[in-house]
Amino acid sequence: MKSKVKVAINGFGTIGKRVAIAVNKQDDMIVSGIVKKKPDYNALFAKKNGMNIYTITEKDADEFRKKGIEVNGLIDDLLKESDIIVDATPDGVGETYKELYNKYGINSIFQGGEEAKVADISFNALCNYDEAYGKKSIRVVSCNTTGLLRSICALSSLSKIEKVNAVLIRRGADPQEIKKGPINSIVLNPVGLPSHHALDVKTVIPWINISTAAVVVPTTLMHVHHVTIKFASRIEKNDILEAFMTSPRIILVDSVISGIQSTSQIIDSARLNKERGDINELVVFKDSITVDNNEVQFFQAVHQESIVVPENIDAIRASLELSGKLESISETDKKLNINKNLY
Amino acid sequence: MKSKVKVAINGFGTIGKRVAIAVNKQDDMIVSGIVKKKPDYNALFAKKNGMNIYTITEKDADEFRKKGIEVNGLIDDLLKESDIIVDATPDGVGETYKELYNKYGINSIFQGGEEAKVADISFNALCNYDEAYGKKSIRVVSCNTTGLLRSICALSSLSKIEKVNAVLIRRGADPQEIKKGPINSIVLNPVGLPSHHALDVKTVIPWINISTAAVVVPTTLMHVHHVTIKFASRIEKNDILEAFMTSPRIILVDSVISGIQSTSQIIDSARLNKERGDINELVVFKDSITVDNNEVQFFQAVHQESIVVPENIDAIRASLELSGKLESISETDKKLNINKNLY
Repeated sequence: MKSKVKVAINGFGTIGKRVAIAVNKQDDMIVSGIVKKKPDYNALFAKKNGMNIYTITEKDADEFRKKGIEVNGLIDDLLKESDIIVDATPDGVGETYKELYNKYGINSIFQGGEEAKVADISFNALCNYDEAYGKKSIRVVSCNTTGLLRSICALSSLSKIEKVNAVLIRRGADPQEIKKGPINSIVLNPVGLPSHHALDVKTVIPWINISTAAVVVPTTLMHVHHVTIKFASRIEKNDILEAFMTSPRIILVDSVISGIQSTSQIIDSARLNKERGDINELVVFKDSITVDNNEVQFFQAVHQESIVVPENIDAIRASLELSGKLESISETDKKLNINKNLY
Repeated sequence: MKSKVKVAINGFGTIGKRVAIAVNKQDDMIVSGIVKKKPDYNALFAKKNGMNIYTITEKDADEFRKKGIEVNGLIDDLLKESDIIVDATPDGVGETYKELYNKYGINSIFQGGEEAKVADISFNALCNYDEAYGKKSIRVVSCNTTGLLRSICALSSLSKIEKVNAVLIRRGADPQEIKKGPINSIVLNPVGLPSHHALDVKTVIPWINISTAAVVVPTTLMHVHHVTIKFASRIEKNDILEAFMTSPRIILVDSVISGIQSTSQIIDSARLNKERGDINELVVFKDSITVDNNEVQFFQAVHQESIVVPENIDAIRASLELSGKLESISETDKKLNINKNLY
C-alpha cells in the first residue's frame, strides 16, 4: 500500500473544514493537522473527528486549552511534517503566509480570494489540470469563477466560443455569517464593468472573450448566474444538453419534473440527498437553456460553500503529481459521492 | 420477531417527509405508503427510498405518471392496509380528512396546525405520554408549543410553577417556501395578547398559568423564545442546569466554548453533526440562564422543521400501545441519533 500524502489545512471556516473532511475521504491523502485561530464549534468538530489542531501563536493555544481543547503545536510544527498545505484563510490573508510556507519548502494550494500572483497557476480541474501538473503552488479560483469555468469548459468543445456574457446574482454572506449584509438591498458589485470575475476566468483560460456583471442580494444559500455564450457557428440545443450531461460535476435540474425554481428548493432537496446539504456540482437549470442560432442562454446556480471542494482535492493531486486528470476527477467524485443527481 | 405496524403518511412536506424517514428507522414500525398531491423532488426522494406513493384523486395520479413517477393507488387503498395514519397535511386541512380516516377505523396522529378538538388528546411525549396511551386519535402540538412544553415539563419537578411568560420570535417561513414573507418587517403575531401558544400549551398541561407573545421576523432557520418562569419558591441555577441536562431532547449550548450566539451558527454546526442539519432537540442557551430568587429567565431555540418528529414517533407508539413512555422515548432517541449534542 502506498503511503498517504500529508495535507495540512490552514483555516477551518466554510472552505477549510469541507476540504479537510474531503481529504480524509480519499485513499491517497490524509489531514496531518489543521491550523485554527479561535476555539469554537468548528474546533470541537475537528477534535471529535480526530484531527490534530495547531495554532499560529502560543497565546492562541492558551485560549484553546482554557476551553479544554487540546492543541498539538504551532503552525511551524505542522508544516515541518506535511507534504502540502491547503490555505483556506480569509480573502487576502493567504498571501501573508506564503513566505512561511516557502520557508518549509512545502507545496501550497491557495483559494480564489487571493490574487492570482500568489501561486504559479490558477486552477480548475476540468479546464487546465494538465497545465497545473507538478506546479509547486496552485490557486483554486473562487466559487463564482469555478461555476463559470465548469459550464464554459463543458461547452468549449462544441464550437469556437466568440463571447461569454454573464450576470452574477451573488449571495450576500455564508449561512453562519451574522455580521455581513446586505439585509435589504441589491448592491451593484461593482458598478463599473466588468466585475473581476471576467478577469479571474481568464487566469485559467486566457483565450476566452468574456464580460461579467455582478450584484449582491440578501440571501445566504447560493449564487445564480445568467450566462450567454455566443459561438462562432450555429449550435443545437441537444448538443448543449449532451455536453452538460456528459461533463463531470454539472447537474441538470429539470424544473418541470422536480418543481425546483429557486435556490431554496435546490438546497432543500440537497438536504435530503447530499451530505450537509452541500452541492459540489454546478447546477444548470435545464428548462432555462435557450438556443438562438449560434447563441445559448441559461441559468446556473453555484453552492458557494462547497463547489471548490473537489477542485482543491484535484489541485493537491496535480501539485504532488499523484495522478492524471481523469483519474483524479473520477476518484474525487467517487469518494465525495458527486453523482450528478440532486433528487 | 414481532411484525411492524404499518404507518401511512398523508402529506410529504416539511413534517411528513421527516416523519416518514424517522418511521422507517424504527424496529417496530414501517411506512406503508405516503399520500402526495403533487409530483416534485420530494416525490422523487420518496420513490428513490422505496416508499409507495398514493394520491387523493385519479387526476393527481395522472400528473405523477406523466412525469414518470409510479403511483400505487388512491388514499383509500392505503388506509385499508395501514394500522395508523400520520396526517401531515397543511394547517387546517387535516380535519377535512378526519371522516375518511374514521371510515376505515384507523388510528390517527394529527399535527399542531389543527385545532385541538380534531383529536382525543393533544400530546407531548415528556409531559403526557401516559394520558395518550391507547387513544384512537392524538394531536402532536406545534413546534413552538413543543419547545415550550419541553422546558416547562423539564423544570416542573423542581418547584411549583406559578407563572410562565414567553416571548416568541418566530421564523417567517420554512427554508423551501418561496412565496411566504415577511422579507423586511417585524410582524406582531398577533397584536392582542396572549398569542395562541399559551392556550395551546394548556391543551397538554391545563394546570399551567402561562402568557405568550409572538412576533414574526424575516428568517427561515429556527424560532427563538425568551422564557421567564416564576416558581413558588426560591430556586438555584444549578438545579435548573441539572434539570435541563438530565431531560431527554434538550441540548444546552455553551456559547463561551462554541461561540454560538445565533440560529445561523446552530444550524451551521448541526449541518456538520446531524442528519440534514435537523435538530430534534430543544436548544437552550446555557449562558442565558439567569436566576433571580424564585424566577428563571433563558433563551431557547426551536428547529421548526424537525422538533416534532420524535413526538410523532412516540405518539404512534402511545396510540397503538406499542410501549411505555420511557421505553418509547429512549428507543426513538436512539434510532434518530438524538444525543443531546450539537457539536
